Amino acid sequence: KFKGAPEISDGKGWSFKPRGRLLFDAAVVDAPRGIVDRGLGFSNEVRRARLGVEGTIPGGFGYKFEADIATGDAELTDAFLDYKRGGLTVTVGQHNTFQGLEELSSSNDTSFIERAAFTDAFGFERRLGVSAQYQAGPVLAQAGLFTDNAADLSNDENNGVGGDLRLVYAPMLGHSQLHFGVSGHWRDLGDAVTNVRYRQRPLVHTTDTRFIDTNSLGGATKETGYGAEAAVIAGRFHAAGEAFWQTVRRTGAADPTFFGGSVEAGWFLTDDTRSYKGGMFKSMKVKHPLGSGGIGAVQVNARYDRLDLSDGAVIGGVQDGYMASLIWTPVDHIRFMLNYAHMDYTNATVVNAINGDRSYGVDTLAARAQLSF
Amino acid sequence: KFKGAPEISDGKGWSFKPRGRLLFDAAVVDAPRGIVDRGLGFSNEVRRARLGVEGTIPGGFGYKFEADIATGDAELTDAFLDYKRGGLTVTVGQHNTFQGLEELSSSNDTSFIERAAFTDAFGFERRLGVSAQYQAGPVLAQAGLFTDNAADLSNDENNGVGGDLRLVYAPMLGHSQLHFGVSGHWRDLGDAVTNVRYRQRPLVHTTDTRFIDTNSLGGATKETGYGAEAAVIAGRFHAAGEAFWQTVRRTGAADPTFFGGSVEAGWFLTDDTRSYKGGMFKSMKVKHPLGSGGIGAVQVNARYDRLDLSDGAVIGGVQDGYMASLIWTPVDHIRFMLNYAHMDYTNATVVNAINGDRSYGVDTLAARAQLSF
Amino acid sequence: KFKGAPEISDGKGWSFKPRGRLLFDAAVVDAPRGIVDRGLGFSNEVRRARLGVEGTIPGGFGYKFEADIATGDAELTDAFLDYKRGGLTVTVGQHNTFQGLEELSSSNDTSFIERAAFTDAFGFERRLGVSAQYQAGPVLAQAGLFTDNAADLSNDENNGVGGDLRLVYAPMLGHSQLHFGVSGHWRDLGDAVTNVRYRQRPLVHTTDTRFIDTNSLGGATKETGYGAEAAVIAGRFHAAGEAFWQTVRRTGAADPTFFGGSVEAGWFLTDDTRSYKGGMFKSMKVKHPLGSGGIGAVQVNARYDRLDLSDGAVIGGVQDGYMASLIWTPVDHIRFMLNYAHMDYTNATVVNAINGDRSYGVDTLAARAQLSF
Repeated sequence: KFKGAPEISDGKGWSFKPRGRLLFDAAVVDAPRGIVDRGLGFSNEVRRARLGVEGTIPGGFGYKFEADIATGDAELTDAFLDYKRGGLTVTVGQHNTFQGLEELSSSNDTSFIERAAFTDAFGFERRLGVSAQYQAGPVLAQAGLFTDNAADLSNDENNGVGGDLRLVYAPMLGHSQLHFGVSGHWRDLGDAVTNVRYRQRPLVHTTDTRFIDTNSLGGATKETGYGAEAAVIAGRFHAAGEAFWQTVRRTGAADPTFFGGSVEAGWFLTDDTRSYKGGMFKSMKVKHPLGSGGIGAVQVNARYDRLDLSDGAVIGGVQDGYMASLIWTPVDHIRFMLNYAHMDYTNATVVNAINGDRSYGVDTLAARAQLSF
Repeated sequence: KFKGAPEISDGKGWSFKPRGRLLFDAAVVDAPRGIVDRGLGFSNEVRRARLGVEGTIPGGFGYKFEADIATGDAELTDAFLDYKRGGLTVTVGQHNTFQGLEELSSSNDTSFIERAAFTDAFGFERRLGVSAQYQAGPVLAQAGLFTDNAADLSNDENNGVGGDLRLVYAPMLGHSQLHFGVSGHWRDLGDAVTNVRYRQRPLVHTTDTRFIDTNSLGGATKETGYGAEAAVIAGRFHAAGEAFWQTVRRTGAADPTFFGGSVEAGWFLTDDTRSYKGGMFKSMKVKHPLGSGGIGAVQVNARYDRLDLSDGAVIGGVQDGYMASLIWTPVDHIRFMLNYAHMDYTNATVVNAINGDRSYGVDTLAARAQLSF
Repeated sequence: KFKGAPEISDGKGWSFKPRGRLLFDAAVVDAPRGIVDRGLGFSNEVRRARLGVEGTIPGGFGYKFEADIATGDAELTDAFLDYKRGGLTVTVGQHNTFQGLEELSSSNDTSFIERAAFTDAFGFERRLGVSAQYQAGPVLAQAGLFTDNAADLSNDENNGVGGDLRLVYAPMLGHSQLHFGVSGHWRDLGDAVTNVRYRQRPLVHTTDTRFIDTNSLGGATKETGYGAEAAVIAGRFHAAGEAFWQTVRRTGAADPTFFGGSVEAGWFLTDDTRSYKGGMFKSMKVKHPLGSGGIGAVQVNARYDRLDLSDGAVIGGVQDGYMASLIWTPVDHIRFMLNYAHMDYTNATVVNAINGDRSYGVDTLAARAQLSF
């Protein structure tokens, strides 16, 4: 049975499926004339190049094992073993820390070329740990204990540890799927980490320029985060919103709290709908694929995305993004995206050399070609 | 259906096949006594270790995704998505830039342990880009726009871009396959690259010593290249030849043009023939494999290979290689090679310390064991 | 047919199977209070994350190709091509150098979280080379010529080369499997390597602290090693022991000989037994798996493990480890381990800062979750 790649199974608990993902991005970032930075203008990259496997083993066990090799290294992404029994799933290994709806949903299925600005800024990543989740009808509870990312654990002095908790209520209202979620995150940075830094790119990952940036916050000992989520899928329409507050505990300095949040709405021009399961958006199924009498699925989305990295004495700047995206999914497993964003900056850390301005606008146009299975 | 690895397909447009390649090389390079270099003499390495996947998706889409992990990194090789309709193929992602017959043919199928000296010297590589090719009977036209190699694009200041064009006419003459090709290549190096360097090893890749080398050519802004190709396969016999002129445009310095070219001829001692399709040599099919009553395929090849890296004020040296190879392919997907080369150097950049000579001969003996699927 | 992952074969010589391995480790190392080292205490890591393929090709050929990506690089492990005919196997590529019973057995199947201290200390690793082995009833002879690890061969000045020989006699005594083995190893370090260093961690790999360490031994030119092995599997019981003497030949200094050895015994609490074939322990088959009416296999093991890195003027220290392990294998391909070790050090190279003591005890508690196929 093909799900992009063949899923081989024996009907008795054994299954195996290769996993792959290729995302190619190109973008133009247009900043005011007084900002001279060769990382702006045109840039392009292999955004993700992942190869891996997943499968199940009789007795309730399963696994996912994938690496990203887009940049010449082999970075572990999902690499875990799980055990399922009834509504319970216990997972050990590197996996996501229940950060929120958009972060947990695959990058194959997002409405924009990158997730909301805060998800990257606040250091969301997969970490080595143990977690349990329980699903009972529309209620999903997830809790885990995590140390750090596999790459960061090659430092044997890294003894950071954290706990993460997420609760989701996702009822059906008629034919509409609703989603409400809250999450809490606590993390002791450990003895090897004494500072944190939050910053973010202007929507696209192809540039390394960040207009807002807290720079290194010294004396950091702990991070706490609280998130709230809501979403609805109603036929061709969907809307989703998230808000997240991240606080850094510091020794000998104030404890700043930063905020990020986004709201989006989307509409399929074709007779299609987004897919949802287990507290996440899932890959949509194209109703009338190209080559079978259709043109595939076409979706338009709009988003407002805010990231505020200023609090008290820390002036990291504020980024307000106004974004539009057009997504064409000719067949399942392949899609093409076109994104436009206007970013409004306040107290940006990149100064306009002509007028000394730190509040200005930046425009971004981006395209992606994507294969995933 | 096994093609080295199993190709899984459903007959309705879905298919999937793992890809793999292991090439183990050992060589001895014998230079004059006055050249003391511990990288000469015996050397050996894992030349290529590639793992990947390829497949097709209903609607005309397909992909290839492979990485080379021979040296501890994971270097993307082919990583692209394509769309085929009739004779048209549109490709997006990292792929070859239509450099020429031998470069486009797989390293699994070359007649010698390394390709002609100019292919490596002039920086032929896969790059991220978009291309189209159209095949109509014996005529093949290929054109693409490319930026740079995925690894080099991790520098967001890299805004190099180029265009590549290749035309092939490949008619049958009786039972003989003919091949004629020309190609043109233009590349703006962009703001992040201001110099280029061309150099080449003495046939084998196991040593890092280059006897000819332009060293860094400063002020470089553009590269242009022109290639011509011809080949014939007639039963057990084949011959192939290529020539390539590479010019560097420079600011504040002359624009040198370098030349590389090679001619080869080969003969199967067994009742076998080389394979050709789509403007490339393809993997041969052994008629009488080992273990099925035969001894596999045995082929001998001879080649003259010239690379001239001297032009005007740039004295990079000239390398004339006289080479012979013996290839045993016991079964499809496995082969063993033995290569001998005598390299004649003129104005080499490595000086013989005894007599100050820069013109001398170097002998190379090399062996390879190969698995590919 | 599933062997963890599906093995696809056509019954006529073709076969293909994906390979994968995920080992997650966490440990606490408790040293005397005077030893302040942030790498001690709690540490955790992805110990192994391997992905690869293996297969056979008609005519007697086969291959294994795997890489470890646990730490962000892609390190080749097994990467070879082999040819089998009758009891003879010829192998070319990167593979193990017939070091001894436990090193040759997969890390999926060891009785403790790490192998005997000497196997890592004496630099056992896979190397590029050519080998032959011949099995005739209970007798197995293995011999090979090897250069170096693929990663180390990226230095073209590396011309180290060595020879390895191993003889095994493995008769059945009633229903008991016996194993006796000896091995000899000779290695010329070559011109690029002029010193060696032997050291070892306190059982677990999650910490990088080594309490014993020869530090750099200069003037090294050659290594020779001799090993002896014995083992028995009798129903639920098994015992195994190995001893290994490693000598460094040096210019202008004495040639020290270091010793390592271990003895272990284990017992399945469930009706299970270890598996053995071809001079190695192999993966056990769980008789009553979880989810099929059983609880899986439960095994307890005890081990004494000594490593003596002191000889003559070299005072690298002695480590005596007393270890216990509990292994739960709920189903084939998955297991969980709990290990405890008390390490007694004599002349450790890490000095207790409080009392200047170099002889003390260290306690280690370690856990692993493992998936392998």
